[in-house]
Amino acid sequence: MASQTHPNPPLAMSGIELLTSATPNGQKISIFLEELGIPYKTTPINLGADEQKSASFLSKNPNGRIPAIVDHSRNDFAVFESGAILLYLVEHYDKEKRFSFDDADETSEMIQWLFFQNTGIGPMQGQANHFHRYAPTKIQYGIDRYQNECRRLYSVLESRLSDRDFLAGKAPGKYSIADISTFTWVRWAAWAGIDLSKFPKLESWMQGVEERGAVQRGLLVPDGEDQIVRLRRDPDVEDPFKGWVMKGQDELKGKHGN
Amino acid sequence: MASQTHPNPPLAMSGIELLTSATPNGQKISIFLEELGIPYKTTPINLGADEQKSASFLSKNPNGRIPAIVDHSRNDFAVFESGAILLYLVEHYDKEKRFSFDDADETSEMIQWLFFQNTGIGPMQGQANHFHRYAPTKIQYGIDRYQNECRRLYSVLESRLSDRDFLAGKAPGKYSIADISTFTWVRWAAWAGIDLSKFPKLESWMQGVEERGAVQRGLLVPDGEDQIVRLRRDPDVEDPFKGWVMKGQDELKGKHGN
Repeated sequence: MASQTHPNPPLAMSGIELLTSATPNGQKISIFLEELGIPYKTTPINLGADEQKSASFLSKNPNGRIPAIVDHSRNDFAVFESGAILLYLVEHYDKEKRFSFDDADETSEMIQWLFFQNTGIGPMQGQANHFHRYAPTKIQYGIDRYQNECRRLYSVLESRLSDRDFLAGKAPGKYSIADISTFTWVRWAAWAGIDLSKFPKLESWMQGVEERGAVQRGLLVPDGEDQIVRLRRDPDVEDPFKGWVMKGQDELKGKHGN
Repeated sequence: MASQTHPNPPLAMSGIELLTSATPNGQKISIFLEELGIPYKTTPINLGADEQKSASFLSKNPNGRIPAIVDHSRNDFAVFESGAILLYLVEHYDKEKRFSFDDADETSEMIQWLFFQNTGIGPMQGQANHFHRYAPTKIQYGIDRYQNECRRLYSVLESRLSDRDFLAGKAPGKYSIADISTFTWVRWAAWAGIDLSKFPKLESWMQGVEERGAVQRGLLVPDGEDQIVRLRRDPDVEDPFKGWVMKGQDELKGKHGN
């Protein structure tokens, strides 16, 4: 009977669908999917066209932010928040703990550094980007406040990496989702006006992660273009985010007040 | 021989030690410990005296922020980042899943909303507090930017709670660490200049959580005083954080640049 009301039911899909754009939070997930080597399909989300605010996207992430995933092999279960997506993928697709840990204390360490990135580096570097690049007038107070906080957070990472290779796990540590999550943001340091060469251990760790084949592949998702390589080649290249950052803020004014 | 070099070794401690102050992030943990009903000891951290930057505190949390815990029943294992602490306490002390879930999908939902609070509401409401209350000159751009983003994030919560009682779990949901984590920040809305009455479902959820006995006890940690009750009684009461917020930012200038 179902076939009468739905004459052409969609074919059952399987595997992970990644809804994403070429930003640090999106790249965390494409890199981890490449590391896991599991099949996945990418659905590019055009931020300039507000696709992250469509009803279809909001049904997967009510916060209207990329990335989100839908697991078509697990009843189309949807996950939002990049940190939660990484932990979901560990739970279901890293059973051998290649990028996570068996030991409870090492697992907690990994989760601590994962939160450190998601609550500190991400939001504060995002604000540094905003005042350094996007705010319509130059507000030195905002630039200083967030660049200085970023440098403080980077100095915490520099200290952590002073006697170990990776953020979590018994010394010298093991490459895990904590590193993947932090790597994509540290790689964009220059974008926020932060000089990474002041943090030599962190820079060297970043370069080591960047050399991995899976990381290189993940950085090309979803457009086949690595924005940071473009920027390294030409610091005056057109800003890939200019079109939507201020648009988003202006829309907030209309909807949510001041 | 050890007894000669250390004639009075410290007595072995057991249970959780919570290093905290009366802020939303600290209160998440004291509330959850009260809900679990396990023995814990509180070590108040005086932020005005920079105790969170002491060598002793940094050995527990290299980021120099409260809260942190030390589990003296598990080899003095230390945990920082409030989201990671809540997940650690779930792992070891909520085996019966009274405030968490057995089901993998419900657990992921809980983790998604936990990250939503930690990456969005916390950092953005913190910035709204800063520009609304602490910045030495009035910068309307910063006030608007962060208050509007807070209102947008609150509208996501309002929508989530439109047809359920709690943030995570099969409808109507179950009270979990996702609610505890979000509750302490939503309760401080007025402090950031956000009118919670514009979000009636969220306000009603907040009041319901606030009525719990364990929540009431947790809100009195570590000083025996609930700052929000003080503020509700007298909106002009002295700002409990005035002494250290700008001090912290000024120190960053000296250490980390601009």
